[in-house]
Amino acid sequence: MTVAVYLPHEDKTAWWVEMLQDLLPGWDVAALDAIRDPASVRYAVVWRPRPGDLARFPNLRAILSIGAGIDHVLADTALPQGVPIIRTVGDDLTQRMREYVALHVLRHHRDMPRQLQAQAEHDWHAIVVPVAPRRIVGVMGLGNLGAAAARTLAGLGFATRGWSASPKSIDGVETFAGNDQFDSFLSGCEILVNLLPLTDRTRGILDAGLFSKLAKGACVINCARGPHLVEEDLLAALDGGRIKQATLDVFHQEPLPPDHPFWDHPAVTVTPHVASQIDAVTGGRLIAANLKTFDETGTCADLADVTRGY
Amino acid sequence: MTVAVYLPHEDKTAWWVEMLQDLLPGWDVAALDAIRDPASVRYAVVWRPRPGDLARFPNLRAILSIGAGIDHVLADTALPQGVPIIRTVGDDLTQRMREYVALHVLRHHRDMPRQLQAQAEHDWHAIVVPVAPRRIVGVMGLGNLGAAAARTLAGLGFATRGWSASPKSIDGVETFAGNDQFDSFLSGCEILVNLLPLTDRTRGILDAGLFSKLAKGACVINCARGPHLVEEDLLAALDGGRIKQATLDVFHQEPLPPDHPFWDHPAVTVTPHVASQIDAVTGGRLIAANLKTFDETGTCADLADVTRGY
Ligand SMILES: NC(=O)c1ccc[n+]([C@@H]2O[C@H](COP(=O)([O-])OP(=O)(O)OC[C@H]3O[C@@H](n4cnc5c(N)ncnc54)[C@H](OP(=O)(O)O)[C@@H]3O)[C@@H](O)[C@H]2O)c1
Ligand SMILES: NC(=O)c1ccc[n+]([C@@H]2O[C@H](COP(=O)([O-])OP(=O)(O)OC[C@H]3O[C@@H](n4cnc5c(N)ncnc54)[C@H](OP(=O)(O)O)[C@@H]3O)[C@@H](O)[C@H]2O)c1
Repeated sequence: MTVAVYLPHEDKTAWWVEMLQDLLPGWDVAALDAIRDPASVRYAVVWRPRPGDLARFPNLRAILSIGAGIDHVLADTALPQGVPIIRTVGDDLTQRMREYVALHVLRHHRDMPRQLQAQAEHDWHAIVVPVAPRRIVGVMGLGNLGAAAARTLAGLGFATRGWSASPKSIDGVETFAGNDQFDSFLSGCEILVNLLPLTDRTRGILDAGLFSKLAKGACVINCARGPHLVEEDLLAALDGGRIKQATLDVFHQEPLPPDHPFWDHPAVTVTPHVASQIDAVTGGRLIAANLKTFDETGTCADLADVTRGY
Repeated sequence: MTVAVYLPHEDKTAWWVEMLQDLLPGWDVAALDAIRDPASVRYAVVWRPRPGDLARFPNLRAILSIGAGIDHVLADTALPQGVPIIRTVGDDLTQRMREYVALHVLRHHRDMPRQLQAQAEHDWHAIVVPVAPRRIVGVMGLGNLGAAAARTLAGLGFATRGWSASPKSIDGVETFAGNDQFDSFLSGCEILVNLLPLTDRTRGILDAGLFSKLAKGACVINCARGPHLVEEDLLAALDGGRIKQATLDVFHQEPLPPDHPFWDHPAVTVTPHVASQIDAVTGGRLIAANLKTFDETGTCADLADVTRGY
């Protein structure tokens, strides 16, 4: 039972091979680039595989994404069709995303960027903000991560809204579904959090049109995928005052190039794709468990819907 | 029924007089300094009264603090003895303090100060931190504000502890009480939040001795009162690496003097006593309601225990 492992860094790949081999005694775990007999490979555990990497294995039973999103796998133009894709989710990932969303919504809510600016100027300047129940926060995407984030924001007292493809019911959260209710969802939102998966329908969704529908001076947090955002539209909306501040964890190009305008923009907070980095030990355990379950039963709770794209 | 109003700023006093007069038709509300007949004054509504201000009124029935703390009233060396003191608390104050504590605990937890430093250097540097359930956060004081803050932190997933004078039981929070359990409470704490009242027993409690009992490299958040903190001890602990970062909302002298070392210290975040500023409209309504209740019944739920000092 051969498992092929690929991550963009060779040392990370070696580390994952060793860890998974420990967790899967009796299985044969190897770096994808070291595979001698492609026909022996039954499973591939990957993060951002290169185009054609997976097409090499004629007997592949499932692809395991080292992460919640599967967009990085679907991006492979030579992806073998009909092979199930399994996501990596779990309490650790959800917990970290809840922390990130709570932190950055609160930072914008209490205007920490301006407060820190006042400190730099030795200015005892109290910024008066409404209390959280009078602050409308919207979460785009109500899956594993978005629903947990929305619940957390409601628990902190925010007037919380959520938007998803199919209708949802979440205690303390006003929910909206589908394209028909998108404008009502956006209208009045003062802080917007993006937790959608990247698909053909959500690529570029954070654009000038969307920004113009939020409350004037709204803040935007993108912790899903870089290509959700039209970067030039955000820069224009920030410079025009339509959007007040943004916190971005993900980018079209990662690492963010050193000369990118986001780094020095006074209204942009950049974090290096850390919103919810599952730690490798916990992630390894989840992936090993999913491998065993799928291998025994032919299915698994974390199976993505490839036709839907997430 | 005369109500005397005093705040350190004349324009604020005028504003409060007008608002309370609107809320208390039939009562006579006036600025303390404009009172002609001291014997007519039954109630005083004050923030930081000057020594002797209250002793002028021989028929005073109660003093209402514009705030949750009563230390600023007890600081009056000529304070008339035996006059009840009524605090101003309420959902608005609690909500704002929950936000402040959640925000700043999360900021330290995810090391935002270092993350922002990395951004300034265009450095795509991921800071790896434990997940909240593996982060020990302690709250000193489990009254109105401390208990709400501890509950909020537990809700965010932190390993939360609390410390108070008398034993308490709070879901999801490990509680400690009294001086005997203080060291066990402090031991291992990685983020410490102070929400004690300022009394003779708590003045200077945040000192070198306390810092040495926390986890090495702990962070400290003081959102109670400035004199809880021995400022020189904090500076030494920060410079020696015993304490990693601090967020301070309150100071011995407010506004913090422009040449104070905290302003430019890279490990100190200064906020201008805004953790939980009750807004004047909400506060005015609470005070008017307490005045009416006390006047009718001779007591009130927000009565402080003057002998205890809070
Ligand atoms: N920055 C980071 O560190 C980090 C870490 C992990 C994940 N992520 C990102 O977070 C994303 C979300 O993760 P997840 O586990 O919560 O995903 P998920 O469980 O698949 O949930 C996706 C949600 O988005 C909704 N959705 C999908 N397409 C939509 C559309 N066209 N219109 C409206 N709603 C739509 C879905 O609606 P239905 O419920 O109706 O299907 C669902 O609620 C991942 O795809 C990944 O890109 C980022
Ligand atoms: N920065 C701001 O914007 C801001 C705003 C509002 C208030 N505050 C500060 O926050 C403080 C707390 O407010 P609150 O309404 O929560 O007060 P509170 O309801 O009076 O609660 C005080 C808590 O501290 C505990 N305590 C008192 N003395 C102690 C001691 N010697 N050892 C151990 N525990 C002790 C009490 O224990 P027991 O429960 O056992 O009595 C109680 O749990 C106020 O006094 C004020 O200074 C700051």
